[in-house]
Amino acid sequence: MYISTFTRRLNTLFKLNESYKKYSVIAAVLKKPTVGKVTEIKGWVKNLRKQKDLIFADVSDGSCAQKLQIVIPKALATNSLTYGSSVHITDGYPFNPRTTHPPEYTRQYLHLRTRTNYMAAILRVRSSLTKHIHDYYTLKKYTNINTPILTSNDSEGAGEVFKLQPDNEETVKAMMQENKDRDSVYFGSKTFLTVSGQLHLEAACRGMGDVYTLGPTFRAENSRSRLHLSEFYMLEAELAFCKTIEQLQLAIEELIKYIFVNIRNTNEADLFLIDKKNVSPTWIDKQFITITYDEARQILQKKGTNVADEGINKEQELTLVEHCDGVPVFVIKWPKDMKSFYMKECEEDKTKVDALDLLTPITGEVVGGSLREDDYKKLKLKLPSEKLNWYLELRKFGNIPTGGYGLGLERLLQVLCNVHNIKDTIPFPRWPHNCDM
Amino acid sequence: MYISTFTRRLNTLFKLNESYKKYSVIAAVLKKPTVGKVTEIKGWVKNLRKQKDLIFADVSDGSCAQKLQIVIPKALATNSLTYGSSVHITDGYPFNPRTTHPPEYTRQYLHLRTRTNYMAAILRVRSSLTKHIHDYYTLKKYTNINTPILTSNDSEGAGEVFKLQPDNEETVKAMMQENKDRDSVYFGSKTFLTVSGQLHLEAACRGMGDVYTLGPTFRAENSRSRLHLSEFYMLEAELAFCKTIEQLQLAIEELIKYIFVNIRNTNEADLFLIDKKNVSPTWIDKQFITITYDEARQILQKKGTNVADEGINKEQELTLVEHCDGVPVFVIKWPKDMKSFYMKECEEDKTKVDALDLLTPITGEVVGGSLREDDYKKLKLKLPSEKLNWYLELRKFGNIPTGGYGLGLERLLQVLCNVHNIKDTIPFPRWPHNCDM
Repeated sequence: MYISTFTRRLNTLFKLNESYKKYSVIAAVLKKPTVGKVTEIKGWVKNLRKQKDLIFADVSDGSCAQKLQIVIPKALATNSLTYGSSVHITDGYPFNPRTTHPPEYTRQYLHLRTRTNYMAAILRVRSSLTKHIHDYYTLKKYTNINTPILTSNDSEGAGEVFKLQPDNEETVKAMMQENKDRDSVYFGSKTFLTVSGQLHLEAACRGMGDVYTLGPTFRAENSRSRLHLSEFYMLEAELAFCKTIEQLQLAIEELIKYIFVNIRNTNEADLFLIDKKNVSPTWIDKQFITITYDEARQILQKKGTNVADEGINKEQELTLVEHCDGVPVFVIKWPKDMKSFYMKECEEDKTKVDALDLLTPITGEVVGGSLREDDYKKLKLKLPSEKLNWYLELRKFGNIPTGGYGLGLERLLQVLCNVHNIKDTIPFPRWPHNCDM
Repeated sequence: MYISTFTRRLNTLFKLNESYKKYSVIAAVLKKPTVGKVTEIKGWVKNLRKQKDLIFADVSDGSCAQKLQIVIPKALATNSLTYGSSVHITDGYPFNPRTTHPPEYTRQYLHLRTRTNYMAAILRVRSSLTKHIHDYYTLKKYTNINTPILTSNDSEGAGEVFKLQPDNEETVKAMMQENKDRDSVYFGSKTFLTVSGQLHLEAACRGMGDVYTLGPTFRAENSRSRLHLSEFYMLEAELAFCKTIEQLQLAIEELIKYIFVNIRNTNEADLFLIDKKNVSPTWIDKQFITITYDEARQILQKKGTNVADEGINKEQELTLVEHCDGVPVFVIKWPKDMKSFYMKECEEDKTKVDALDLLTPITGEVVGGSLREDDYKKLKLKLPSEKLNWYLELRKFGNIPTGGYGLGLERLLQVLCNVHNIKDTIPFPRWPHNCDM
């Protein structure tokens, strides 16, 4: 008998290296997964369970103790399939009709997963989200500035970075100069992938007024959490002549509500498909809440959890949102030591900076922002590297007060669509050991 | 006397390393340029030329034979400045009022150059261009797909690539596995910066219909030409159920005319500021011209230039556009050997592929595109690497004919604004030995 199509159960490894045989042995299939290779297996059915639409067959070919579980849509199986049958199975389309596949399963087929209804709906929402963002900033007369992806500034504490160099050895040799290492040979200095466009955006802001950027950013962290990617999108904006943290808060709240209201108009069917219960979040008509960092710490203490020196952790962020009945909450007035060098001191408390985090359900922090230190002398004392002299010099001529924020696009999508894992909000997610195509 | 502000003439090097002296010697200033450092010079005026608004002073301090030319706005100079004067010059704001600075000069001050009228106008046009592109594809019901920046596919002949790895040695050590080199340690295989989102876009197209992407792409080439950047933006679109090259040509012509008409409405004052003569290109109301590659070769031969095996060069591209009276011209039906593996054979001539280049004034090629090979067996024979099996597998299930194109955003801006050098169409240009901030 011949079964032309099968699907594999969640977490079943199946991918295979090329072999001298025309078909593969199960031991090899289980050992070396490779995406996009054709797999062929010959063996015997050792166990068979029939459900409404699917047949689960455990197949062994004698190559190892493990059996390979094959999931067969009933319509495609012959009636003669039974315990002990010999079978010849070839690889096929991995998705079943009338089935919602778990995201962990479809993630194994990145090149095919836009064909699933769930993923297509999320990606349509993502596309609309991007469009609404550009519409919002056009309405508000911001200029869209493409900040650079390649930069000689390292992250200054914003996280771990990727460095890059030409892959071609000939190019490296041709460009090699005295006193330069391989990392510096192409650009003349060590070059990294950006972790934020903020500093460059501040330069543009002092020439062109309100500006924003929406593009990819990168972290070389060894994290596989449901909230982290190695490549993700940040929306960053810098507001000219911004003097108070309240101005910044109003701008962020307006942006997020604009997006949520418009997405409900343009993508209602998609939102319904993704999660029936989530189409209208309960907080959409409520004002966002504001608490200070000190208040947040007290709230958490009363709930029996202490804030560490590094700051409020993810679990604590979600506790704070729950404490606010699921309404997004701004945490403001942060201890100086917890935040970046460029943030402005609070006027009434020099131990604090005028920074904010916006916390939401599902993801916790989704926006971070601050007023920027616009005092040349104060900034000079805090500047972490000579490489940032250009950033200091922005304050030397035609200086203005500015403030800005960065919003994680994928995290906002998680909130918007109630998606548990960030890897399901971007077409081709990249995380440690996962950059397959 | 004290001159608080000066500007430096085009190509004058001026930047300087920190020194134990409070001021610098000219020999050092000429030797070690660094952006964003304060420069102070003391010396004597050896030559003085006064023009309408500016004074040009050649200053020597005895440290070397060369003199440093200082450009001083007349309003800021004292009357006592004369041949032989001793002067103390400190660094200042590099731009003059009522002066159009050459782009080569303002490029030395990337962090400040958005403050010039010329650059601000170009960047406003760039911002609007992006917006019109998203508007166009929204009208046409395309989905915006963020194709990945990081990829394990190398470029397959599309050009030289950058490879990347974590900068942090601790991360590399923690993630190191047996049989993995440093380039593979983070993602499990060697990882590069994308040169094109096309292949990924084709995957999305087979799930979601018409799709597009607008984002950064990278080339590690050792080129400093006026048409090349190491980091630049590509607009790429993939059209589902696209069967003829004419469909593709119509889509491209419509897009470009949509952009030009809308930019004239939204940014007329900017276009006028950038180049008075270029606000209305002569070809905007004309139909684009189409010639085959063979016809192009004949036209060029008659003009006394032969096409090399690698294809039509830049000068020849511009000759063809001139031959067509400056109207954009599609060159179609290209020899198979000159083009990529994924392009579809012409039905009537198996030595040719259904590819197109669109040539315009100023830049020559601004768009490249093709029908894609949708025959599984033909594509399998031409596949350059096993790593692209996922791309082949797209043709195995639910296959459709598709076609697509890639448009260089900065080159289109050059055409739109009549800008000679591509480095002046992007806020922070990167090219060999230039990635300063």
